[in-house]
Amino acid sequence: MKNYIVFALLCITSLTQAQEALFSGGKVSSPQVHADKTVTFRLAAPQADSVQVTGDFLPTIKVETPMGKVDGPGKVNLIKNEDGIWSFTTKALNPELYTYAFIVDGFKTTDPANPFLIRDVVSVTNIFIVPGEQADLYRVQDVPHGTVASRWYDAQDLGFDRKLSIYTPPGYEQSDKEYPVLYLLHGAGGDEEAWLSLGRAAQILDNLIAEEKAAPMLVVMPNGNVGQDAAPGAGSDGYYTPQFMTPETMNGKYEAQFMDIVDFVETNYRVKANKENRAIAGLSMGGYHSMHISRFYPDTFDYVGLFSAAIMPREDKSDKGVYADFEETLKAQKDNGYKLYWIAIGESDFLYEANTEYRELLDKIGMPYEYTESDGGHIWRNWRVYLSEFVPLLFQ
Amino acid sequence: MKNYIVFALLCITSLTQAQEALFSGGKVSSPQVHADKTVTFRLAAPQADSVQVTGDFLPTIKVETPMGKVDGPGKVNLIKNEDGIWSFTTKALNPELYTYAFIVDGFKTTDPANPFLIRDVVSVTNIFIVPGEQADLYRVQDVPHGTVASRWYDAQDLGFDRKLSIYTPPGYEQSDKEYPVLYLLHGAGGDEEAWLSLGRAAQILDNLIAEEKAAPMLVVMPNGNVGQDAAPGAGSDGYYTPQFMTPETMNGKYEAQFMDIVDFVETNYRVKANKENRAIAGLSMGGYHSMHISRFYPDTFDYVGLFSAAIMPREDKSDKGVYADFEETLKAQKDNGYKLYWIAIGESDFLYEANTEYRELLDKIGMPYEYTESDGGHIWRNWRVYLSEFVPLLFQ
Repeated sequence: MKNYIVFALLCITSLTQAQEALFSGGKVSSPQVHADKTVTFRLAAPQADSVQVTGDFLPTIKVETPMGKVDGPGKVNLIKNEDGIWSFTTKALNPELYTYAFIVDGFKTTDPANPFLIRDVVSVTNIFIVPGEQADLYRVQDVPHGTVASRWYDAQDLGFDRKLSIYTPPGYEQSDKEYPVLYLLHGAGGDEEAWLSLGRAAQILDNLIAEEKAAPMLVVMPNGNVGQDAAPGAGSDGYYTPQFMTPETMNGKYEAQFMDIVDFVETNYRVKANKENRAIAGLSMGGYHSMHISRFYPDTFDYVGLFSAAIMPREDKSDKGVYADFEETLKAQKDNGYKLYWIAIGESDFLYEANTEYRELLDKIGMPYEYTESDGGHIWRNWRVYLSEFVPLLFQ
Repeated sequence: MKNYIVFALLCITSLTQAQEALFSGGKVSSPQVHADKTVTFRLAAPQADSVQVTGDFLPTIKVETPMGKVDGPGKVNLIKNEDGIWSFTTKALNPELYTYAFIVDGFKTTDPANPFLIRDVVSVTNIFIVPGEQADLYRVQDVPHGTVASRWYDAQDLGFDRKLSIYTPPGYEQSDKEYPVLYLLHGAGGDEEAWLSLGRAAQILDNLIAEEKAAPMLVVMPNGNVGQDAAPGAGSDGYYTPQFMTPETMNGKYEAQFMDIVDFVETNYRVKANKENRAIAGLSMGGYHSMHISRFYPDTFDYVGLFSAAIMPREDKSDKGVYADFEETLKAQKDNGYKLYWIAIGESDFLYEANTEYRELLDKIGMPYEYTESDGGHIWRNWRVYLSEFVPLLFQ
């Protein structure tokens, strides 16, 4: 004990700007998740006139925008005590991973007491988990853990090296057996980090495998923006403002080069390189990619998952674009056969109609699929649930 | 192009709380690093009465604290324009990775336009890089990239699984040759993520290897807090407020179990498992760990690096604690021989005197070392430089 008290005192007595980081936090505890699943938010802001918290743990409210009234995040006021500490305690919350921000005198900010943040496109948002039920899949539990690697591969068709994230299951390194592979694709504005951060893919896989609900498998999370070598800040473009849509992301180019990724994985990892042991799934734009990739290579994947898939309106299904030969290639995929074509969407998702229309097409051509409808819209809460439901159906 | 315009419009027309993340950023560009190495900070805060920026790109100022006047980070005022956008442009800055924060009406906050942040203990701080010279080592360049993996191992002496970060050099996976290993240890308040984030270890190694200034090597970055299984938020303790000092971190227990880590690496990776091909180095508490580990196992490491090492005051060098048999074990290490014992510290570091005293002891017992003194104190800027200088000296 003595050593580090001495060390801490030495640090404090010569506080430099870098060392300030060591001591600036911890004035208040926030958010505090209580045993009864209520949550207290606190902010030390004695000079502020108003503090609010906004986040997906609150009911949505109608917000005025140039496009009319739409659903927006709820807000609630914090109350200041005599020490200048603002606080608010929620009612008991459902188990879930939540995001939130503070609004101090109209200025939206992160919670300085909570160092746990996740980037979603350009926004960086604090997170917390209310444990229990489904949310326990999102926590790091005391179970065997897979390895998560950040690795570069030669994207031959694009002409440069690109980064992907890859999860190998517990025991992969010690074993000599071959494993199946799930290719898991992000949405617009995302990148190879999205399924690991907001998607909790490594935790979901670790926990489902530990419960023997999922087969041990590799999960490959590539970058779906063909103009990027890696996530913003992680690639050779350095630090810049991330964009929701990057050029050439939904024009067929990504689908055309996808087998470079499959070849890389099957050359560099101990996997079962056959259709029975390949799955592909994605959210939103990644669902669009999964739909097109699986029909462009119609005898390659035995499992396909479309999570809130960004299926485009009919006018894009012309012969000229990525939708060329749409029905014919789907029919080829159907005739080749597969084990599972799984579609999930939230009832208030803005892509609900496009997905309904797509299912009508599948019905028309007699292409079998399974369909799951949840509440909620185009949100990570749903995509985590869809992944948790989809993975146990694979490779069994 | 048409597809994603349609998609973006669909998103906008049904803005939900999750989707708000997609569109809330990008009102202003901040920070903007100009070609002449000046940097403009901008913040949209029409309701604010004052906005300042503080960070390590500004000269330090004297700050009043309970311990007297100490060096603190400088601050400068931003000026508001008619649109409610505050801005400030620096003079030309030296190439470097800098950290900064805004202060809005007295409230310290991150920059909402900059999604690039790094956690340092409990504080989360925005970063930017002014390119050129030394700072180019910290950038992701268009060179071959190593793989960074986050992996769990069985810490047998501690009784639970623990996480470490490991860098394997470009070509490792395709090669059948064996590589040397650098064990790189973090400071108090850090964890297995620290050298990768603020330390830029992967970029420094990629760039030095590409320039043929460093031998291809593995870099193992374990967690030095024996009470933790992983970094805050990444382990089974879930989300909590990180502490500067965790219990049992500097009491000898970490040193005693260190060979578990070496054994794990040498069993699981294609490495040269001998003294000539092992190096150990660390910053602050990690320098303390490196000093003790290399003398506890006095015939194990041919290269030792102490970066601003937290060498404790004399009263701790009793026979009872981690300093037991201090001189005798150092003499054994000396007699066994090694290739490099490298000590670096900044002239204003609060550990300067303790390091001077330690070098006097080494002189007294005739233990050879190399010594580098830089300007500045106990800061990441120095540790990145020390790593960049130390790595080229290894395994040549």
